[in-house]
Amino acid sequence: MTVTTDNPRINGVDTATLFGTLDAVKAQPAIAKFQFRAANTWLNGTHSRSTFSGFFGATQELEHRQVTTVEADHPEVLTGEDHAPTPVEMVLHGIAACLTAGLANIAAARGVHLTEVTSTVEGDIDLLGILGLSDDVRNGYEQVRVTMHVKGDADDDTLRALVEQSRRRSAVYDVLTNPTPVVIDVVTG
Amino acid sequence: MTVTTDNPRINGVDTATLFGTLDAVKAQPAIAKFQFRAANTWLNGTHSRSTFSGFFGATQELEHRQVTTVEADHPEVLTGEDHAPTPVEMVLHGIAACLTAGLANIAAARGVHLTEVTSTVEGDIDLLGILGLSDDVRNGYEQVRVTMHVKGDADDDTLRALVEQSRRRSAVYDVLTNPTPVVIDVVTG
Repeated sequence: MTVTTDNPRINGVDTATLFGTLDAVKAQPAIAKFQFRAANTWLNGTHSRSTFSGFFGATQELEHRQVTTVEADHPEVLTGEDHAPTPVEMVLHGIAACLTAGLANIAAARGVHLTEVTSTVEGDIDLLGILGLSDDVRNGYEQVRVTMHVKGDADDDTLRALVEQSRRRSAVYDVLTNPTPVVIDVVTG
Repeated sequence: MTVTTDNPRINGVDTATLFGTLDAVKAQPAIAKFQFRAANTWLNGTHSRSTFSGFFGATQELEHRQVTTVEADHPEVLTGEDHAPTPVEMVLHGIAACLTAGLANIAAARGVHLTEVTSTVEGDIDLLGILGLSDDVRNGYEQVRVTMHVKGDADDDTLRALVEQSRRRSAVYDVLTNPTPVVIDVVTG
């Protein structure tokens, strides 16, 4: 057994695994087909809880290392009991986390060591839409703004290019900015 | 002080407050302008944590009853350490929770008592997109499917109509199915 430096971790990302994954997918594109899942249970009022456990990927059923539950509710000003953030706030978490994960991976691939990444996300929404009080107002966010603060051992242009590449490859950015088909089936009784 | 029955709770929803909110917004549409927020911090690798505390609504800065943190990560098969569900799974939680909260509100407004609401959400994603290995594959979900199981004291048609109305008024459904502008600002150094 030899100790090598062929497996450097940059930004906590195992770059050998990262490049190995890319090579594996190039050799067998079917392993890139994933299905993610959530199971939600209504608790009371506007309060519900989702559970995340299994998913499909790399041609097999997989399990997360632990089962996670995340709740959602409406605040009291919106007829809820504020047990948890709202469903629309979860989407803001999704875009921030997706851009951040991509940024860390891309920086690692390019040999840039990040020291700090924080972001704030704001989503403007006019509830005249969901309240059914205006046909001119959409139900969802009119705009989402992400402000990313990035520090690392590279110059301004390089750091900005990392964020831009993360945006270009972000799953959640795509889901928000482009139409994503959502099919709803109902089972009663 | 009098005890009245003018304030019935159906499905845990205070219907008097619900209708009162609608009347208040009709009288002063500016109170419908909300801004939701998340603050995300990169932890390591693809792992990050979002914090939800304040939001703007009803013409004022408001605070959630408690500060909530939610994490995200990639699974090990996607170069992460699987500390939490992925960013794209958080979006599935968002759509399920949004449809469920709307359903409970709309059922309450229509006098339908729900006894059980559960949903499963699946999102199909081909990672050839985010891995940059195909220009023909989108980064995000190709399709999201929500299966809602709904029980309550109404017939099949009525329960289905509740879900349909929830879909029509869902903020997250709109955000996913229609383009939502996302602006990304970067601050370095």
